[in-house]
Amino acid sequence: MEQIQGGVTAAKGFEAAGVAAGIKYKDRMDMALIYSTEPCNVAGTFTTNIVKAAPVLWDKEIVEKSPFAQAVVVNAGIANACTGKQGMDYCHEEAKTVSKLLGIPENAVLVGSTGVIGMQLPIDRICAGIEELAAQKDGSIEAGHTASKAIMTTDTVNKEIAVSFELDGKTVTLGGMCKGSGMIHPNMCTMLSYITTDAAISKNLLQDALSESIVDSYNMISVDGDTSTNDTCLLLANGLAGNTEIVQKGEAYDKFCEALQMVNTYLAKKMAGDGEGATALFETVIVNAATKQDARILAKSVVGSSLCKAAIYGHDANFGRFLCALGYSGVVFNPEKIALFFESKAGKMLIYEDGVAVNYSEEEAAKILSEPEVTILVDMKMGTETATAWGCDLTYDYVKINADYRS
Amino acid sequence: MEQIQGGVTAAKGFEAAGVAAGIKYKDRMDMALIYSTEPCNVAGTFTTNIVKAAPVLWDKEIVEKSPFAQAVVVNAGIANACTGKQGMDYCHEEAKTVSKLLGIPENAVLVGSTGVIGMQLPIDRICAGIEELAAQKDGSIEAGHTASKAIMTTDTVNKEIAVSFELDGKTVTLGGMCKGSGMIHPNMCTMLSYITTDAAISKNLLQDALSESIVDSYNMISVDGDTSTNDTCLLLANGLAGNTEIVQKGEAYDKFCEALQMVNTYLAKKMAGDGEGATALFETVIVNAATKQDARILAKSVVGSSLCKAAIYGHDANFGRFLCALGYSGVVFNPEKIALFFESKAGKMLIYEDGVAVNYSEEEAAKILSEPEVTILVDMKMGTETATAWGCDLTYDYVKINADYRS
Repeated sequence: MEQIQGGVTAAKGFEAAGVAAGIKYKDRMDMALIYSTEPCNVAGTFTTNIVKAAPVLWDKEIVEKSPFAQAVVVNAGIANACTGKQGMDYCHEEAKTVSKLLGIPENAVLVGSTGVIGMQLPIDRICAGIEELAAQKDGSIEAGHTASKAIMTTDTVNKEIAVSFELDGKTVTLGGMCKGSGMIHPNMCTMLSYITTDAAISKNLLQDALSESIVDSYNMISVDGDTSTNDTCLLLANGLAGNTEIVQKGEAYDKFCEALQMVNTYLAKKMAGDGEGATALFETVIVNAATKQDARILAKSVVGSSLCKAAIYGHDANFGRFLCALGYSGVVFNPEKIALFFESKAGKMLIYEDGVAVNYSEEEAAKILSEPEVTILVDMKMGTETATAWGCDLTYDYVKINADYRS
Repeated sequence: MEQIQGGVTAAKGFEAAGVAAGIKYKDRMDMALIYSTEPCNVAGTFTTNIVKAAPVLWDKEIVEKSPFAQAVVVNAGIANACTGKQGMDYCHEEAKTVSKLLGIPENAVLVGSTGVIGMQLPIDRICAGIEELAAQKDGSIEAGHTASKAIMTTDTVNKEIAVSFELDGKTVTLGGMCKGSGMIHPNMCTMLSYITTDAAISKNLLQDALSESIVDSYNMISVDGDTSTNDTCLLLANGLAGNTEIVQKGEAYDKFCEALQMVNTYLAKKMAGDGEGATALFETVIVNAATKQDARILAKSVVGSSLCKAAIYGHDANFGRFLCALGYSGVVFNPEKIALFFESKAGKMLIYEDGVAVNYSEEEAAKILSEPEVTILVDMKMGTETATAWGCDLTYDYVKINADYRS
């Protein structure tokens, strides 16, 4: 398994583009296209929010019913959520336009939107954007890079990764890009994440691999506890790597899953660390929990706590807040038994054990918490299960961004 | 039912005091005493957090096992949580000191603490504080007022209320005080809330009345989603009103419950509106839900959402965030069916209906959201059940307060 240069265009046969279509902001890119020269098996996971955006409903239909997919068109600025029948009609219009320009069936076109909820898309500018995207797309690393920038909203950095590995003597590549900074508390999937691969793998196994992979990647991050209406993770596989098609679980499937997990975990952490207003990636590692599910719930409870997040921002060794968040998670444990550590590049330090604070140095603890990546490590001493969750600190800028997001 | 002057000393036979004991801060009151001249029946509800503070464990024991209670001593500044055996020993020492000074049994003394988690109480200063409290207590309205100020931490205003009503031709009075501003997301009870009454009512019915009352009062508020380790609500009844003792459910019990609901709802709203850094009380009213529980869950999901809270702070009619928070609450509904309104003293306005935004005036909507008390009203159109939840906006000051709380 090797990390290589690039993102969604790293795998064979994938092309991409990004353009400024003037959806909501002036002078910034806001539309992206991913295209595969060959038909792809596609897997997807979507928001569990009852209020689902139109593109989520559209994509679910494609993933479940279309024989294959071949393109994804995404806009930033407007989420096309809470937009009724017109919102669905606009998804269809996008697909029609892509279909006509690229010569692929309408039901092979996936769509995605992110931005303000409740506004209708400016469909004329969207369709003009699609024409530009179709004209500009190519398979270069740079094109994937441009696409990953074009889907950003309040993100401060673009997020992409590619990895490759060997199967049957063939090189298989997996690349991905995502965006997400606010309204990030994915449940069964993430904000917008697009993964491409040239692996040959059956549609059923592709969906299995994706569904398994999100549990310990996207579903373990939280920026603000708000599960979006638009969360979407799509995985397209076009088979161009030339490996023997993976049609059953086994060594090849496991290798593919390992690569997918690496990509998804990388992208999920990137989103958490780039949470709106964040100055630090805030990781919580639970070890020796009684069950895997307990470990996940405990880890997510800590990274989701406003008070823990504010303590990280203040570099404040206010460990009681971490214990408090473990305590209200719903998981049963004995607070007299657990041990809590702070850890970062600056060191590792035991803070709490046997029901009381140990005699630690406040100065040293503050130094550990001042790094851009900070870990709270909790040993539950109840079993052998582990989980990791990622979030970010709560800052003035989070409030600033969200108190005047639309203006 | 009439609201009258005063707080915990409004009911007959109750005395109080507040003093500056130097627990954590200089030159501010930080210890309070409530004392009844007669033994009281006592009811209590406590945090559901697995990590329970020592005073919570102490009080649970008293409420469940003691024949009566007669005093409550409370300190602010240090929470006596995550303090192990020493924390419990200190509760006992407090009770011993009160017992000796006031001539009541040790197991008639309730204790309460609020503040930083993980530090031990300065027990010498606590005991010196108790001596002062015992010397100064009296039954004046002013004394109750002083006590309600002495339990404040990051609160900006003290919170108290008293109501009276007639039973068997006798005037029955119910008074209460509470504190709470951060780490407020009560679950089966509240931060610290103390209610006193001269009603004659059996211990069982007193607990029933309290347990019912908290569901739609304290349990419907949230400041930051963090359920504290110290949440405690105590209700003391000394019987001095002279009414026939309430020993079964019926008209007299209902009247008492109505008064209790008024007191608890008032105090809960006060806490929400005085949430750390808050500039507005943020109310969500759900009407015509399918079940009562659905209505409660929906209302709490909205007031608990960071993005909704930030929108209230920004006076931003970003209604999609409210729909999003309803959508991820876990309650099943049809987003195409519901109607959403903004309401405040400045007016009431329909914003969203039939799956899309109505054509509302942004300027008018911003004006409605600029009031110090703002309501989001959602008509689910599914049944007849209603619930109301209270929170506050998310502001720079919330971050400021919590990024340097301990320093």
